[in-house]
Amino acid sequence: MEKVATNRSFGGQQSVYRHLSEVTNCAMTFAVYTPPQAVHRPVPVLWYLSGLTCTHENAMVKAGAQAYAAKHGLMVIFPDTSPRGAEVADDDAYDLGQGAGFYVDATQAPWQPHFQMYSYITKELPALIAAHFPADISRQGITGHSMGGHGALTIAMNHPETYTSISAFAPIANPTGTAWGRKQLRAYLGDENTSWARHDACLLMDSAGWPRDMLIDQGSDDEFLDLLATPALTAAVQAAGIDATIRLQAGYDHSYFFVASFIADHLQWHADRLHVTAS
Amino acid sequence: MEKVATNRSFGGQQSVYRHLSEVTNCAMTFAVYTPPQAVHRPVPVLWYLSGLTCTHENAMVKAGAQAYAAKHGLMVIFPDTSPRGAEVADDDAYDLGQGAGFYVDATQAPWQPHFQMYSYITKELPALIAAHFPADISRQGITGHSMGGHGALTIAMNHPETYTSISAFAPIANPTGTAWGRKQLRAYLGDENTSWARHDACLLMDSAGWPRDMLIDQGSDDEFLDLLATPALTAAVQAAGIDATIRLQAGYDHSYFFVASFIADHLQWHADRLHVTAS
Repeated sequence: MEKVATNRSFGGQQSVYRHLSEVTNCAMTFAVYTPPQAVHRPVPVLWYLSGLTCTHENAMVKAGAQAYAAKHGLMVIFPDTSPRGAEVADDDAYDLGQGAGFYVDATQAPWQPHFQMYSYITKELPALIAAHFPADISRQGITGHSMGGHGALTIAMNHPETYTSISAFAPIANPTGTAWGRKQLRAYLGDENTSWARHDACLLMDSAGWPRDMLIDQGSDDEFLDLLATPALTAAVQAAGIDATIRLQAGYDHSYFFVASFIADHLQWHADRLHVTAS
Repeated sequence: MEKVATNRSFGGQQSVYRHLSEVTNCAMTFAVYTPPQAVHRPVPVLWYLSGLTCTHENAMVKAGAQAYAAKHGLMVIFPDTSPRGAEVADDDAYDLGQGAGFYVDATQAPWQPHFQMYSYITKELPALIAAHFPADISRQGITGHSMGGHGALTIAMNHPETYTSISAFAPIANPTGTAWGRKQLRAYLGDENTSWARHDACLLMDSAGWPRDMLIDQGSDDEFLDLLATPALTAAVQAAGIDATIRLQAGYDHSYFFVASFIADHLQWHADRLHVTAS
């Protein structure tokens, strides 16, 4: 593992690392914010999964999470959104291939050899973090934006024992039913089949459910409202009786200005839940 | 004036405009954060001047100022750092020409026709803001980073009646004595002459002085420490008896992670001073 960059930030350290992933079979880049409290003791971990076209860098630079991570003593991990490199399959579209891993393990050509983002995010990278950083890996929360909101919700609902707290910003909520989803699930997992369901937050509300609460923010002026399917999410949450707070934020769009405006609430949300077992 | 973009941010609006400047004789881009309080009454104005290579966008996206501008009811203006365009003179170096206006009015060829950033920032843009935005232009503060810190200090000290409050992040403090400064002053203003002095914060501490207090933050691990001349600034402040708080922030570098880490303090500083006459 190579340290690519490091900057002091809010009394902690914002760093970028590069490592050779066995799961995605290529070099992967991720960013870690280590809060000042980590000097004294292992701290809880919050995963921030980013959206289409993003790298590890967008949220690290634009979301403003470090101020609140430092306040609450949370480590924040910003993974990349896909495998990358000349040897990695890609597509001319912005929403498929590199920058669009969709947080699934691909079974289809040409994606299968590298596009294993589900396993990378849920297994390989947490193991790396646990081994090399002052992280209390028994306390993990997960959040994300857009495609990353989809990743956060679906990953947490599939592993409620691993992720204590969930939140999401403008998640792609019903990918089996919308253009942001059907295209990618077909490409990575093959024509519609039973493997799709565990990567759809709306369907998981009914099938897997979620034993605790969750926070979701959605801008009312989001330019991708139709592709995100927030109404379907609200209906699924209500039908399944899930304890979800879904806030429609008036006038906000899909940008990082929206994410930054509510990042304080989300980090407070995760801190309140991850510190329950803190010493 | 054309609105290029607008995003809801912390209950206010982060917008980008483009207009034809008579002073720089080309199209100029600037960003404005309008806080929620401006719906009810004109609000004080804080100028944020950016550093070498920056546009209006860097601080707008990376500094995290909007959260505190919304809290305190401050309008923040993020101007570009130079005239731009195919018809505007430029230089291959990152620190001269486009992206490096240095907040002076050039008298020398080939810069003179467009590089009039001092007049643009102190006259033309404030008049535009006063005419078109809910700004209380009688209450202005100014801050900036690196070359923009130089701009903030020198502009305010030359116009103490206009700018109530000053602060700076890692300012180029002694440009008549360092490589970041002598090169640009020579190019824009000609071989060393009397016009240089009013664009040097260290010299202005003695000649013009400053009737109120000022806040300056400087990272101890700044990679450009020699070019910024912070020790000279400290000495000049002490010799002139200026009420300056100069904080050396341990472990911080020159990046926006440094700026973001202390932006809350700076906006609080300006708010405390600009709201003295508030209703």
